[in-house]
Amino acid sequence: MSIPANDPAKKTWIPTPDQTDFPIQNIPFGVFLTRDDIITIGTRIGDTAIDLGAMHQLGYFDGIPLTDDIFLQDTLNDFISDGQKTWRLVRNRISEVFDIGNDTLKNNDAHKSIILFALNEIEMQLPVQIGDYTDFYSSREHATNVGSMFRDPENALLPNWLHLPVAYHGRSSTIIPSGVPIYRPIGQTLPKEAEKPVFGPSRLVDFELEMAFITTDANKMGEPIPVAKAEEYIFGVVLFNDWSARDIQKWEYVPLGPFLAKNFASSMSPWIVTLDALKPFRCKGPKQEPAPLPYLTLDGNHSFDIDLEVDIVTAEGISTTVSKSNFKYMYWSMAQQLAHHTVNGCKVNSGDLMGSGTISGPTPDSYGSMLELAWQGTKPITLNDGSKRTFIEDNDTVVFRGFCKKSGQRIGFGEVSTKLLPVFKAKTKI
Amino acid sequence: MSIPANDPAKKTWIPTPDQTDFPIQNIPFGVFLTRDDIITIGTRIGDTAIDLGAMHQLGYFDGIPLTDDIFLQDTLNDFISDGQKTWRLVRNRISEVFDIGNDTLKNNDAHKSIILFALNEIEMQLPVQIGDYTDFYSSREHATNVGSMFRDPENALLPNWLHLPVAYHGRSSTIIPSGVPIYRPIGQTLPKEAEKPVFGPSRLVDFELEMAFITTDANKMGEPIPVAKAEEYIFGVVLFNDWSARDIQKWEYVPLGPFLAKNFASSMSPWIVTLDALKPFRCKGPKQEPAPLPYLTLDGNHSFDIDLEVDIVTAEGISTTVSKSNFKYMYWSMAQQLAHHTVNGCKVNSGDLMGSGTISGPTPDSYGSMLELAWQGTKPITLNDGSKRTFIEDNDTVVFRGFCKKSGQRIGFGEVSTKLLPVFKAKTKI
Repeated sequence: MSIPANDPAKKTWIPTPDQTDFPIQNIPFGVFLTRDDIITIGTRIGDTAIDLGAMHQLGYFDGIPLTDDIFLQDTLNDFISDGQKTWRLVRNRISEVFDIGNDTLKNNDAHKSIILFALNEIEMQLPVQIGDYTDFYSSREHATNVGSMFRDPENALLPNWLHLPVAYHGRSSTIIPSGVPIYRPIGQTLPKEAEKPVFGPSRLVDFELEMAFITTDANKMGEPIPVAKAEEYIFGVVLFNDWSARDIQKWEYVPLGPFLAKNFASSMSPWIVTLDALKPFRCKGPKQEPAPLPYLTLDGNHSFDIDLEVDIVTAEGISTTVSKSNFKYMYWSMAQQLAHHTVNGCKVNSGDLMGSGTISGPTPDSYGSMLELAWQGTKPITLNDGSKRTFIEDNDTVVFRGFCKKSGQRIGFGEVSTKLLPVFKAKTKI
Repeated sequence: MSIPANDPAKKTWIPTPDQTDFPIQNIPFGVFLTRDDIITIGTRIGDTAIDLGAMHQLGYFDGIPLTDDIFLQDTLNDFISDGQKTWRLVRNRISEVFDIGNDTLKNNDAHKSIILFALNEIEMQLPVQIGDYTDFYSSREHATNVGSMFRDPENALLPNWLHLPVAYHGRSSTIIPSGVPIYRPIGQTLPKEAEKPVFGPSRLVDFELEMAFITTDANKMGEPIPVAKAEEYIFGVVLFNDWSARDIQKWEYVPLGPFLAKNFASSMSPWIVTLDALKPFRCKGPKQEPAPLPYLTLDGNHSFDIDLEVDIVTAEGISTTVSKSNFKYMYWSMAQQLAHHTVNGCKVNSGDLMGSGTISGPTPDSYGSMLELAWQGTKPITLNDGSKRTFIEDNDTVVFRGFCKKSGQRIGFGEVSTKLLPVFKAKTKI
């Protein structure tokens, strides 16, 4: 037997940089376009991308029940649909094949030339076809900050917030992978003290520091997923930037929630990190008081200690880290979110994406949005080039990074990086 | 040249009942399972279902640029993606083939045995794979009624309502075709004057009388659809029941909008009626005052005169019509809704579904939900068996019908019929 996939002592024969997000203990899943213009499902070790379709054709997954074309797909949906048992068998096999003690592929140059790619030879794609996208609102600090600003600091949390993981539906069609630029949205806003709305570019474009999980098809319509089973149906986790236009949001969102303020774009990191890879970094979430109702009650370590960082990079390439937060600040766990989402019988499909909501920590330098970091424009952030930001400016790039660290071991998510372009030109004709 | 597809004088050689919703002037599109267990795209004339896949294979669409398998699909998405010009060519050809003066298919018994089905030989399917579902809130009467009940009768309409078509995102995964029963949802609610929420079956399950339109893939991400062009990207319209649990909604919906109160089920009529078929029934919508912003300004007849009816059928089969409304009461037109939806660059895909929101008319017998018809439970409706309803009870079936009538001509939508079953049994284990 080889060393277990998560063992920190495990080493690989793939050259791997120090402090990589993608040691052999990670083995995330993604979809990429190869130098031969073929789309395939793959994984990554260090700075090497690995074509799982080619590995499968060459017999490296023999003995695992997989259809022939399971990795020769535009999306991970069918593979995810195969279920947790299959994901584990595949991840463990990859871990074996690339173990430093395994010579089979290591010594086969012909196979290596087909299976392995340098990162500059591939182009990452959106890894799943997202049927439905749900966004939660599960950071107590974020909800408190927003409630303080827009409602009442004395009663910042609304009455339902501590009883259920508040959520709303978002737009799947505008979820993009890291690297795709977006345009500044236009729309209706109500200027301060104005009586009538005006039309034009949003002046308050913001990021929201989130993570998101991807589900498998877990239930039939009408059947809830019990909270104790919920994690079995979570394939993995990504970094997620839920772009927001605060001025559009303010005018439109009462009473039915955010709409155009959110649905112009959300961006995700392209490598999905499995819950199995994150296992060493499990931790308790915040104490929940009052105790949740039984259908949301789950003891144990169901949060994850994941460091998160946000950089703003100017058009000139000057980078400034503006926030450092952590996924463990989330009040509601992913298991609770999924149990709540399905308690009414709502059907969850393979490839659905569920965002955490903005992840703000307890201190002002750990807030997860410009709205909070610059406190509604009253406390501008100074960047490393001396310029100030209250929101995101044209040609700024927003970069999120996320990684777990423990006893010298590191498992990371890479990054999600998105540039905000000026307003789309044809829009002026509207 | 044959008689134009919309000409009221046009007749067909297919036996057609009087007062059918599906005269030869309709030619809707749907997807059905045939007696041979094959899924195909089809249309309907009178009580005859027509297999368009078979028609295409037998050459009846020769000369129209269509791929060989365009109708041999589980959904209409690819056909819709071919665009308005193709939809028109296909509809006009069907109109020709079934014209009473056209003997080609009429006299070919071999072909007829392959192409034509009685309704009891087929099973209607969900006609599109719905990528994203958006629900508008575009009936002034409905918004006013709800605002009066839950907020302030003096200021029932919120400040944004007359300036933009308010909307929010819904859940695609639980949209079902007519005939599929649903379960009463369970969830959290806050009983009157209670301090803590309770968990259990929703007591206030309601229908929402809506129509919905289906789009084609209209724009690139970042590019708005001008209001004057919007109707070109609308494939057709269906009846739509956006099931709602009012007690769950009340507790969860502030501040981000309805979630579990809505996403347990929405049901649609299975035949999509094209805007071309509805052309004779175009009319002006309500006067819009204040005038909308330029990106929402559109003169002309962009509403449709469509009679709508709601029946509640008891477990014993006793049917009562509880509401009569009309699509023309909608304040915001479909063109305005689509232009607003995309003004920020939001991408619209083939098969997306956009609900109108509950369509209430000006009089109490034309309200589009039990919430309004029975005014929050204060004015119970008496059914024809003498029983009372304030909301929908277990084993009730809710049936919507819709049809246009003018100078003896009728174009209809058939029905969307959904039975509410008691709470799903396994739920008691949660």
